[in-house]
Amino acid sequence: MAWNPEFEIAFNPKTVAVVGATRKPLLFGDFVASLQNAGFPGRIYPININAAGEEIHGLKAYPNLVSVPEPIDLVTASIPAQAIIPMLEDCIAANAKNIQIYTAGFRESGDEKGIALEEKLQEVAKRGGLRIVGPNCMGLHVPASRITTWTMLDEPGPVAFIAQSGGHAGVFIIDAPDYGIHLSKVISYGNAAVIDSIDFLEYLATDPETQIICIYLEGVRDGGRLTTLVREINKTKPVIIWKGGATESGARAAASHTGALGGEREVWDAFFKQTGAVRVDGREELLNATMTFRYLCPLVSNRVALVGGGGGNSVAAADVCDRAGLNVPPFSEKTRRELGSFIPRQGTIIRNPIDIAFVMLDVNVLVRAMEASAADPSIDAVIFILPPGVILLAAGILQSKEKCTFEEAMEKQTRLVLDTMIKFDRENIHRKPLVIVLQPGLLRFLPGQRERLRQELLKAGIPVYLSIERASRALGKFIRYHQFHRILRAD
Amino acid sequence: MAWNPEFEIAFNPKTVAVVGATRKPLLFGDFVASLQNAGFPGRIYPININAAGEEIHGLKAYPNLVSVPEPIDLVTASIPAQAIIPMLEDCIAANAKNIQIYTAGFRESGDEKGIALEEKLQEVAKRGGLRIVGPNCMGLHVPASRITTWTMLDEPGPVAFIAQSGGHAGVFIIDAPDYGIHLSKVISYGNAAVIDSIDFLEYLATDPETQIICIYLEGVRDGGRLTTLVREINKTKPVIIWKGGATESGARAAASHTGALGGEREVWDAFFKQTGAVRVDGREELLNATMTFRYLCPLVSNRVALVGGGGGNSVAAADVCDRAGLNVPPFSEKTRRELGSFIPRQGTIIRNPIDIAFVMLDVNVLVRAMEASAADPSIDAVIFILPPGVILLAAGILQSKEKCTFEEAMEKQTRLVLDTMIKFDRENIHRKPLVIVLQPGLLRFLPGQRERLRQELLKAGIPVYLSIERASRALGKFIRYHQFHRILRAD
Repeated sequence: MAWNPEFEIAFNPKTVAVVGATRKPLLFGDFVASLQNAGFPGRIYPININAAGEEIHGLKAYPNLVSVPEPIDLVTASIPAQAIIPMLEDCIAANAKNIQIYTAGFRESGDEKGIALEEKLQEVAKRGGLRIVGPNCMGLHVPASRITTWTMLDEPGPVAFIAQSGGHAGVFIIDAPDYGIHLSKVISYGNAAVIDSIDFLEYLATDPETQIICIYLEGVRDGGRLTTLVREINKTKPVIIWKGGATESGARAAASHTGALGGEREVWDAFFKQTGAVRVDGREELLNATMTFRYLCPLVSNRVALVGGGGGNSVAAADVCDRAGLNVPPFSEKTRRELGSFIPRQGTIIRNPIDIAFVMLDVNVLVRAMEASAADPSIDAVIFILPPGVILLAAGILQSKEKCTFEEAMEKQTRLVLDTMIKFDRENIHRKPLVIVLQPGLLRFLPGQRERLRQELLKAGIPVYLSIERASRALGKFIRYHQFHRILRAD
Repeated sequence: MAWNPEFEIAFNPKTVAVVGATRKPLLFGDFVASLQNAGFPGRIYPININAAGEEIHGLKAYPNLVSVPEPIDLVTASIPAQAIIPMLEDCIAANAKNIQIYTAGFRESGDEKGIALEEKLQEVAKRGGLRIVGPNCMGLHVPASRITTWTMLDEPGPVAFIAQSGGHAGVFIIDAPDYGIHLSKVISYGNAAVIDSIDFLEYLATDPETQIICIYLEGVRDGGRLTTLVREINKTKPVIIWKGGATESGARAAASHTGALGGEREVWDAFFKQTGAVRVDGREELLNATMTFRYLCPLVSNRVALVGGGGGNSVAAADVCDRAGLNVPPFSEKTRRELGSFIPRQGTIIRNPIDIAFVMLDVNVLVRAMEASAADPSIDAVIFILPPGVILLAAGILQSKEKCTFEEAMEKQTRLVLDTMIKFDRENIHRKPLVIVLQPGLLRFLPGQRERLRQELLKAGIPVYLSIERASRALGKFIRYHQFHRILRAD
């Protein structure tokens, strides 16, 4: 089907009916409680044939959809598979056309019964004009409207996530705030029996609340349409895609998971080449890439300065950047002379990477090194790697000097450096983006500070990564997107 | 030079002289304090021309090496570069032949003066028969002898690490215990002006305390000898190598770091192919691979069962395993029938991967699924992925049932599953190795338990990884090593 704008009220419903609502504690899927916990401001109608007239979570329960006294904007169904078709007939009778079906046991089961049931579902949907999300999914999560089938809600933001997997959708919702990513819409659409990823994509393309579109998909019915659509959307909103079932083993698993036919690897390679969509291969990559798109201004050239150290770390960081498609060029003669004028030669490297580990705790040296790197015309962006060893040692000295605890000294030293970075980024006279790597080795000594430090940097608009691998891979993808995009816009 | 066994006393010295000892608080390199903190049981002689007759950290200071009243087994030097040559002449006069030089400012500086100084150092060493580690290094770290230039000491163990980078050596020492890795010797050898990685490798090949050898190197002088040696050692002790400066950018940084000429990428590719050494590309890979070698029995076939879930996770895990060179074959018909007899069809996958997320909290179901997977003749090893969502939900129910705190409920549920795994692994009637993936998404809800859970599993002999990527990559490398090794032994 093509996108039906009548579905859009489901993203901001005034009324939600929960079919299969129950008072028993559930391992999963108490959707009345989810809505209540989320602070949904509309009206919730619990539906349960056995609980008619009773109360569920303090709300009057109804025996079926037809008995609900007002129009229903969204139906959430969590009932046994064999009860789904009669429920859909009720939906038609009640004129409730927007439905999300949590229930599994359809095409993904791989057996004839399940496949037949899904075909029947499609037939009823077509006849009744039903707009169905799922089955075998977690449905819609919209922070701005306070609707969710999960238990947590964060503030709204510009990132949408369409996921064939409810699990991936759920973990993304949990993890996103740590990366400074806030959400417009998350859509878990499972078997895609009626509304497919392409339909949602069409909607998000023009959704003013969505600026970045993330997708986890296992299969798609109309590859040609997906290609045209993603290529078009990419011109204005980056599309970041995690293709599940990209390998032979994964494709076999995907067939059992959502009944998807994954398609050939070559077909997907061609898809990414033609559309310029950002390809990520897992959850961490998805989150790191999305954070990069959220916080950095467009960048079309790949020459980075690596500042931090020490020596082995600098070599490792250069290797990692190279593998991620970034270039770590030697500084110009002028920059090297400038750096050499205030950085002692011994135990340092000033050619790019800059290893100034053991002098960098003089914040003035650090700032001048950052300035000189950013000023070099052969540099497009600066990656600052905070070396744990230096902070540890400096904290040891501070501790004995100020008689504070080690953790206080660690925090003070770390903050000194990070505040310097925030100030440097805010002034940013050379207009070169800055990203920061905070290694777990350091954060381990600051257990209480870990998230706070990340959040402070993110609030200052600086992407922060937990390893140089993650930083360089995300940055590489970001730059390749903008290089492609520049060409695409010239089409 | 070839390995000189007279150096070996330096790994277990009775006397250590610290040249450049000082009472001032140092940002780095208070090596008298390091030895004292480590509980070094021998005698420490602080040497400082300006502190003769005074005390440093409660020990009598001497003006030079010649005035020390007994033979010196190991000299640690941390003095300005220009003072190194006179100090070496003192070493010759005092017949102190084992020396580690912390000082930088030699070949790695890239300038003529530094290069000339290193050549002079080599000349003096040759004339005086001096066995020098460094310069520009952190020297020796031997937990069994309580000697170190660092500040931390762990219990001794069977893993050695030779590292051209002091920073990498230090972080490895800090991180290793988290991975259940305990150390025999860590050697940071910097510029390798006199003793090279190959010499240390020759020593470790026959060191009875070392069973696994890890190496970080940026360059090597005699590639042919390294190849022959590693190929030979690999027959009895796995050699795991992180080659720094493996890319163009990295090689440039390495030249500035230790003055190493990294060599062509093709040369190193050939090296790994010929020697069967385990290639790792960074710190995390090094640690995860080493843990795998430490805990798993040899394995020459790559067919894994993936147990855990949920659906999207299973697809992602299968993709990741495939990319890491593991095979995730469909279970046999018999296994599928067995699994189908007690696992409900709906919302589960039982073909491999097994997604039993929402029924697995019945520990009996979990154990039977593990048993059936391990019994399948087409399976060589089992990867269990603990799905965070399930534990979260089950903990929610447990909390309302038992009126405990959420963290208590989380811990109880997690322990229930992990204890089941430990029991399964101990009984292990099918003799198939088990590895466990604990995802950060779960551990975030168990901040106080994080390290304890990992350590308990490691103590039970089960390798535990923080992501399926890390687990599958380490396992892939481990299996390829043993496949190669079987052929090599047949030579």
